[in-house]
Amino acid sequence: MKKKVSLKDIAQEAGVSVALVSYVLTNKEEKARVGQEMAKKIRKIARKLNYQPNHIARSLKSGRSDTIGLIVADISNPFFANIARTIEDEAKRNNYTVIFGSSDENADKAGDLINVLLNRQVDGLILIPTEGSEQQIKQLKKQNVPFVLIDRYFPGISASHICINNYESAYNAVSHLIKTGHKQIGMVAYKTALHHINERKRGYTEALSDHDKLSKTSGMKLARYSHLKEDIRLAVDQLLQGRKPADAVFFATNSLAIEGLKYINELGLRVPEDLAVVSFDESEAFDLFYSPVTYVRQPILDMGKAAVRVLLDQIKDADKPAELVCIDTELVIRKSCGNP
Amino acid sequence: MKKKVSLKDIAQEAGVSVALVSYVLTNKEEKARVGQEMAKKIRKIARKLNYQPNHIARSLKSGRSDTIGLIVADISNPFFANIARTIEDEAKRNNYTVIFGSSDENADKAGDLINVLLNRQVDGLILIPTEGSEQQIKQLKKQNVPFVLIDRYFPGISASHICINNYESAYNAVSHLIKTGHKQIGMVAYKTALHHINERKRGYTEALSDHDKLSKTSGMKLARYSHLKEDIRLAVDQLLQGRKPADAVFFATNSLAIEGLKYINELGLRVPEDLAVVSFDESEAFDLFYSPVTYVRQPILDMGKAAVRVLLDQIKDADKPAELVCIDTELVIRKSCGNP
Repeated sequence: MKKKVSLKDIAQEAGVSVALVSYVLTNKEEKARVGQEMAKKIRKIARKLNYQPNHIARSLKSGRSDTIGLIVADISNPFFANIARTIEDEAKRNNYTVIFGSSDENADKAGDLINVLLNRQVDGLILIPTEGSEQQIKQLKKQNVPFVLIDRYFPGISASHICINNYESAYNAVSHLIKTGHKQIGMVAYKTALHHINERKRGYTEALSDHDKLSKTSGMKLARYSHLKEDIRLAVDQLLQGRKPADAVFFATNSLAIEGLKYINELGLRVPEDLAVVSFDESEAFDLFYSPVTYVRQPILDMGKAAVRVLLDQIKDADKPAELVCIDTELVIRKSCGNP
Repeated sequence: MKKKVSLKDIAQEAGVSVALVSYVLTNKEEKARVGQEMAKKIRKIARKLNYQPNHIARSLKSGRSDTIGLIVADISNPFFANIARTIEDEAKRNNYTVIFGSSDENADKAGDLINVLLNRQVDGLILIPTEGSEQQIKQLKKQNVPFVLIDRYFPGISASHICINNYESAYNAVSHLIKTGHKQIGMVAYKTALHHINERKRGYTEALSDHDKLSKTSGMKLARYSHLKEDIRLAVDQLLQGRKPADAVFFATNSLAIEGLKYINELGLRVPEDLAVVSFDESEAFDLFYSPVTYVRQPILDMGKAAVRVLLDQIKDADKPAELVCIDTELVIRKSCGNP
């Protein structure tokens, strides 16, 4: 790369001091100190030479960069991509720019990204943490970095977070399957230690036991994130086997449901006649499915807004205690569970 | 925020010089210069104090940050989110970290993001440029910043870019509609000056005129990015009106097709019996649609890989001439156009 144009280069060409150039280029309004003509001349030279102000040097001094770092778990998942979009819109409204990274559900990569973003002087972080990233969160707390978790959190670590009521949302979704007359209700979830998924599992199990349905674990199937496709095929096969095959399935996320529905189509099963379906999260694919899928709508817009608000509060006052925001979901009832 | 721990703090606690601490913490291998015991002690203190090396200061010196900036046009569009994911995977394989931003198809926002990323010392940029961002691209060239465009480019500006053959891909898609017996073929595209969309329009028009079909512009409907939903309803309505209503539609992107299919469902039309459909880009929703949608598959993986390779070449040698990579697409034929 060519050498960057410096204030010195401009000063030389204008025949003035570096201090004067700096003054003119960092003050938008003309003040009495500099003649208008001279200010104009300096600006013109800066444009001609393609001068780029060094914001890093400036932010090292001021300690503020008006930039937020965002780390999502997987940018190719529309749920996270939509959260990113919402956070960006809301940050923009507050005159912050967002730069982000995607950890691909990998704790090491998440750690690298945290370092990369902090080293680029973001004022704070919004994180969708991955499984196994507890130490990173603890470390951020120790370093007193302003940050907010969204979607996921760790119950053992006190930190600001934005979440939904996963237990209750799952409980309601499964209750809807019961109300619509289903007797053998399976669930497909991720094999993970992440709290929010386990809360969804708990919602499923308790809804069944509260309604005197079978609450045995045989109805709960787990898929690995790394082997999604094959594990879901196996899970659906297992649910449909045996003396009492499933007449309904609750999918714990949109990715699980989409793979599941593809396989259900392949098997030639009709939804809801052969198998009723309810899922967490929204998806364009759910809307276009011949039997539009009943789903737990997460309040993505409100979650993104809350994350930005809480983070900006933390940035303004680093000693502010952790703030927890829990937002209600909505069960959007469509055709995939049949009629009550 | 608390004051950051400096090399000086560590030196004080270890009772050694700042230079020695710096030497130990920046050299991974122990050298003869420092005793192993002392190196261990210094590292231990650094860990205890939560010392964070200042990579910015370091990269200001070395001029390299091993970081790539990526600006996509809209992160909530799965096509761009998947490109982002691919670029990230490929960059990771080359030991680069990607930080990205989303311009929301807004040239001003794209300009802000370019500045934010350059000011954070990325080694180069991969851009999906928005309409009206020609000046920004010219400016990057003037500044000699290594960059690559992907998906879109400006024919008047010589710059490295990765693209597909939009004209030919659209021509093939429309030819398939003709081969499957359709007589009145409409197209829905964006109202935009962007070259790649106009190439898709040209492919449609020429396929029709080469096959002696009506090639009048009446079959071409345009939707505004900002008013997608309403414009698409109007477009589909117009295509279905009149003496010769459309029996097939070619959608220029996945977003257009998804909105179009939602409306086609609402109208109770059957695909392909009432209306055949072919679209650019893939989508989970296309797979799950009762009549899986025939589409132009863009080679996202190859595009992402090529973008990273070309950018790293530019970073290594800033005087390398612009490299253009054009990759073939594939028409994935499914049920939505009927049988030949």
